[in-house]
Amino acid sequence: MAYNPPPLSLEELQMFIRKVWTFMRSITGEGNRQTLNAAQELIPELEIIEVPTGTEIWDWVVPKEWIFKEAKILDNRGKVIIDSKIHNLHVVNYSQPINKILSLNELQNNLFSLPDKPDTIPYRTSYYDKSWGFCIQDEVRRRLVPGDYRVIIDSDFIDGSMTVGQIYIPGEVKSEVLFSTYICHPMMANNELSGLAIALGIASYIRSKKNYYSYRIIFYPETLGSLYFLSKNLEYLKSNLIAGYVLTCLGDDLAWNYMPSRTGITLSDKIAKRTLEQLGIKYELNSFLDRGSDERQYCSPKVDLPVSSVMRSKYGSYPEYHTSKDDLTFISKKGLHGSYEYYKKLIQGFENHRIPRAELFGEPMLSKRNLRSTIGGGTLTSKEQLISNVLAYADGTNDTFEMAKMFNVNIHEVESIVDLLISYKLIRVV
Amino acid sequence: MAYNPPPLSLEELQMFIRKVWTFMRSITGEGNRQTLNAAQELIPELEIIEVPTGTEIWDWVVPKEWIFKEAKILDNRGKVIIDSKIHNLHVVNYSQPINKILSLNELQNNLFSLPDKPDTIPYRTSYYDKSWGFCIQDEVRRRLVPGDYRVIIDSDFIDGSMTVGQIYIPGEVKSEVLFSTYICHPMMANNELSGLAIALGIASYIRSKKNYYSYRIIFYPETLGSLYFLSKNLEYLKSNLIAGYVLTCLGDDLAWNYMPSRTGITLSDKIAKRTLEQLGIKYELNSFLDRGSDERQYCSPKVDLPVSSVMRSKYGSYPEYHTSKDDLTFISKKGLHGSYEYYKKLIQGFENHRIPRAELFGEPMLSKRNLRSTIGGGTLTSKEQLISNVLAYADGTNDTFEMAKMFNVNIHEVESIVDLLISYKLIRVV
Amino acid sequence: MAYNPPPLSLEELQMFIRKVWTFMRSITGEGNRQTLNAAQELIPELEIIEVPTGTEIWDWVVPKEWIFKEAKILDNRGKVIIDSKIHNLHVVNYSQPINKILSLNELQNNLFSLPDKPDTIPYRTSYYDKSWGFCIQDEVRRRLVPGDYRVIIDSDFIDGSMTVGQIYIPGEVKSEVLFSTYICHPMMANNELSGLAIALGIASYIRSKKNYYSYRIIFYPETLGSLYFLSKNLEYLKSNLIAGYVLTCLGDDLAWNYMPSRTGITLSDKIAKRTLEQLGIKYELNSFLDRGSDERQYCSPKVDLPVSSVMRSKYGSYPEYHTSKDDLTFISKKGLHGSYEYYKKLIQGFENHRIPRAELFGEPMLSKRNLRSTIGGGTLTSKEQLISNVLAYADGTNDTFEMAKMFNVNIHEVESIVDLLISYKLIRVV
Repeated sequence: MAYNPPPLSLEELQMFIRKVWTFMRSITGEGNRQTLNAAQELIPELEIIEVPTGTEIWDWVVPKEWIFKEAKILDNRGKVIIDSKIHNLHVVNYSQPINKILSLNELQNNLFSLPDKPDTIPYRTSYYDKSWGFCIQDEVRRRLVPGDYRVIIDSDFIDGSMTVGQIYIPGEVKSEVLFSTYICHPMMANNELSGLAIALGIASYIRSKKNYYSYRIIFYPETLGSLYFLSKNLEYLKSNLIAGYVLTCLGDDLAWNYMPSRTGITLSDKIAKRTLEQLGIKYELNSFLDRGSDERQYCSPKVDLPVSSVMRSKYGSYPEYHTSKDDLTFISKKGLHGSYEYYKKLIQGFENHRIPRAELFGEPMLSKRNLRSTIGGGTLTSKEQLISNVLAYADGTNDTFEMAKMFNVNIHEVESIVDLLISYKLIRVV
Repeated sequence: MAYNPPPLSLEELQMFIRKVWTFMRSITGEGNRQTLNAAQELIPELEIIEVPTGTEIWDWVVPKEWIFKEAKILDNRGKVIIDSKIHNLHVVNYSQPINKILSLNELQNNLFSLPDKPDTIPYRTSYYDKSWGFCIQDEVRRRLVPGDYRVIIDSDFIDGSMTVGQIYIPGEVKSEVLFSTYICHPMMANNELSGLAIALGIASYIRSKKNYYSYRIIFYPETLGSLYFLSKNLEYLKSNLIAGYVLTCLGDDLAWNYMPSRTGITLSDKIAKRTLEQLGIKYELNSFLDRGSDERQYCSPKVDLPVSSVMRSKYGSYPEYHTSKDDLTFISKKGLHGSYEYYKKLIQGFENHRIPRAELFGEPMLSKRNLRSTIGGGTLTSKEQLISNVLAYADGTNDTFEMAKMFNVNIHEVESIVDLLISYKLIRVV
Repeated sequence: MAYNPPPLSLEELQMFIRKVWTFMRSITGEGNRQTLNAAQELIPELEIIEVPTGTEIWDWVVPKEWIFKEAKILDNRGKVIIDSKIHNLHVVNYSQPINKILSLNELQNNLFSLPDKPDTIPYRTSYYDKSWGFCIQDEVRRRLVPGDYRVIIDSDFIDGSMTVGQIYIPGEVKSEVLFSTYICHPMMANNELSGLAIALGIASYIRSKKNYYSYRIIFYPETLGSLYFLSKNLEYLKSNLIAGYVLTCLGDDLAWNYMPSRTGITLSDKIAKRTLEQLGIKYELNSFLDRGSDERQYCSPKVDLPVSSVMRSKYGSYPEYHTSKDDLTFISKKGLHGSYEYYKKLIQGFENHRIPRAELFGEPMLSKRNLRSTIGGGTLTSKEQLISNVLAYADGTNDTFEMAKMFNVNIHEVESIVDLLISYKLIRVV
């Protein structure tokens, strides 16, 4: 593992978003492969895995792979009035093939639009039911005149696979922090590509330095992907996952939202909130009742992993969510920058989350190690005092962040004393 | 077990109280048998058990059975001036036989009266000491003139038994809720018969429907009876009793009192308080220091069962307590009605106290069970949302009541979703 | 063990302080032996133990014994200008021998003084580094004129021992309370001899009566002594030590300070704070960050014993600390009296800290033991009520102090009921 490349710049992340914007992502298919290949160009350590059609995942099964070419509706004069080439959202994801003339009445049953947002295209899927459909602006729908329409969806379903990606960056210990993002939403910026971009940024940041903890960044379709990941690794994660975060909705600069884990009291929650406080960020504390992304799987009762999420405008709560308005103009450089900086600081928080434990019984003799003056009776220097305090509180319950707060000193001072005392074998990290 | 008979009406409970009013109850004897027989007429499932004289019960022993015929005092002209036929309380319970002429001075040692309540007859017992006595109004006592009095108590002590009763109504599970009332106070209405009547009402209510939990309603003399019950069943109760209530002082409409268990944090306390809150009842929270009935045994340190009590005017605190003024006019239809409704609601609270636990790992696939629309990307219906929430919080810590509160929906909605998900084997109740 | 001698009087404690004032205490040496011998004259049960030079104590080792005769500085006219006979603090403790003429410049490197306290002699040691030095008043130092000075330190280092003392007073049970004081500061009154005197007073008080708990009072050099004690006894202490106190700074009447254990939630803390409250003492609650005496060892992470400290003017915080101004005029009879009374009350607090547990299931039958009237139905006497309450709360969680508070009665009433019920085998102490 080379630690040389510097972290990706914000510009590189934005370029990546623009590059993959038009790929037709779904829970399977070529769009996902294209997206992961583009990611791999930035982080070659990214592994791409194919999970075959038919693979059983607990209560679920990997469906046939969706081969999509195009979807369009022509009016009775042969004019293309709806075209998936204009916007990926126009076709209901996983639509069956069709090539047929339908009356407007017949067609209506397979049209989706939002009367209260007449100029937006909604996002709809039909992964597990043999169906087809078009998503269109309600104002377009209202202008459709009675008559015949030719409906063409050129798609196919094959025994293929679900494509998933993972970057694993080992640290000194096997204990790991997970970052989980998803690759299944076609042409949505905040609720898909912002998470993907920040995930790549995080990976590049972690890769650029030596780490105490191991880190895993995964790129899976929502729900089915995270279930696959969990079903394969639950036992390992139960032993080694100390915290995880769902990376989603990280591109705008309008808000900060914190979605706790189901219990709200895991290490994931602790470090997420601590980092928000350190950065002086005002945020909305959401209820787990308003969960919406893969924390639904990570925090489900029998899985019960310590996973939370810090995001910007929260899925389900901003008007552009799950529509064509969640586009490249909705996210901003400033928004991505804030999210990137937040998660870098959070990773530093984990690296600082070392809980020292004393190795010797009683106070060690410090003067023989030149860690204290040989003349007794006077006042300790502040460094001697800090050494003494770190040793006294190295009882396996306080991490260095908490020590810094307790001792009213900078975290870096505590970190350097901890490193010093580790080098003398007077403490170890638990 | 037939579930057909409807719950007893308030009128039937009142009729029962009037019927058994004059029976000479004690810790043993014919009055107790008459009382339990009358109860058995209403609830044939009631079993009557005889515990022989001499039976050892931990630190105690069942005494000889008291055969009581009559007790009276005649003045020197042969006029009956005190007569147990007028009021059962006139004779000290468990009095030895006597037939003797005594001077007023000699007689005074065996008279009990209440100078501060001159028109009431007190209640006194002497179960374990060979003694005799009369309880009279202090105003009557003050009018006694010096001279000779013939004292007649026609009683006997035989190797008989302590008579106790029990109704056990099995539910789906062995886990049970106990209702404990007592049958040892002669001619007292609130502090005896109200509890007995409500116990019968509760039994008839439970019997009228299918239940998840099992229920046990016991009719034992106070102290010695509950000690017998505990000494026989402690191990079983430790494993199966989830909560219990002492039914006492439930006939008046002047107050509501809650007597916590010794720790105050058992399931018995939780459901008792929850039910009071649900019904909007203002109540007095008593200290366990002011305990007075069989919670003294149920909550004693080595027994330590989860038993509390919700009552109306509390034993020991209303002026009529343990006197002839605790009569049929002290209790009221309104009072009995409120108590009956309270305990019915409490039983519903237990039936709703189901703690679901998810059966599958991760979120189940709901659409294949027609529990969710096959079209994804839109908003969930409120039922779909509720299904999702019940599954997410089915972690073995939340009961349906708490879920309803958390989800801000009616308990019945949660209950029906729980039943639905149980039928799909997606959750089970722990 | 004779229980006859009455506790030492305040005058005897003061006499002891004056007697040992001039002995040259250190971490080893004759001064310590003289001090312990004087203590043994007051409490013959005090054992004196010699721990040989070279004994390994965890990270430490017992150094050579310091044989000190005298230390002086003469000016170029042969006049003695600094003399350890004037004040023990003049010589740096554990100074190497020297007899040499030095220029003022050379001498300065080995002089210690306090510019901001020009009329005081500081206290300095050099136990583990081969060094020598003189501690002088800064005003004296400033008057030294350039020129030659003869420096004489007549000392030696031999394979001897560290001398330590212990008084162990067994009670009914092996569970013990520790009082730890130190014997290593030459000529300091509050920060040495006050603790020693109160320790002897405590020992004489405990010895004068029968006790439920065992008590151990130890007299060891600070740090190295307590580490020796711990290294020898840690396993035993982990099983049997219920609480401990460092006795230090107990001679003045200017303040009360409480130094909690590291966690602040041990039985030591509970009884210390309870006793302060009982006596209505206003005190300063210190942070464990400001620890300074042997709690540093007792509460170190891998030792982790329940040890706290109640003191008067706290080490490190009063201006006279670790200087010649911490002399016999700094402490007072009133100060010693208050400290002595505090610790006597604290010991009573431990003796009252009995947690009763019921022996029988359910309520015992009290009337057959003449602990309750045989006539039932009336009101209990306050003694009957108290018996009933002690039995009901004898669940192994409440000590007699807490019971007294809960029942709103005097602790002595609870104690006498507990003794009564123990005599009837109705409860035992856990």
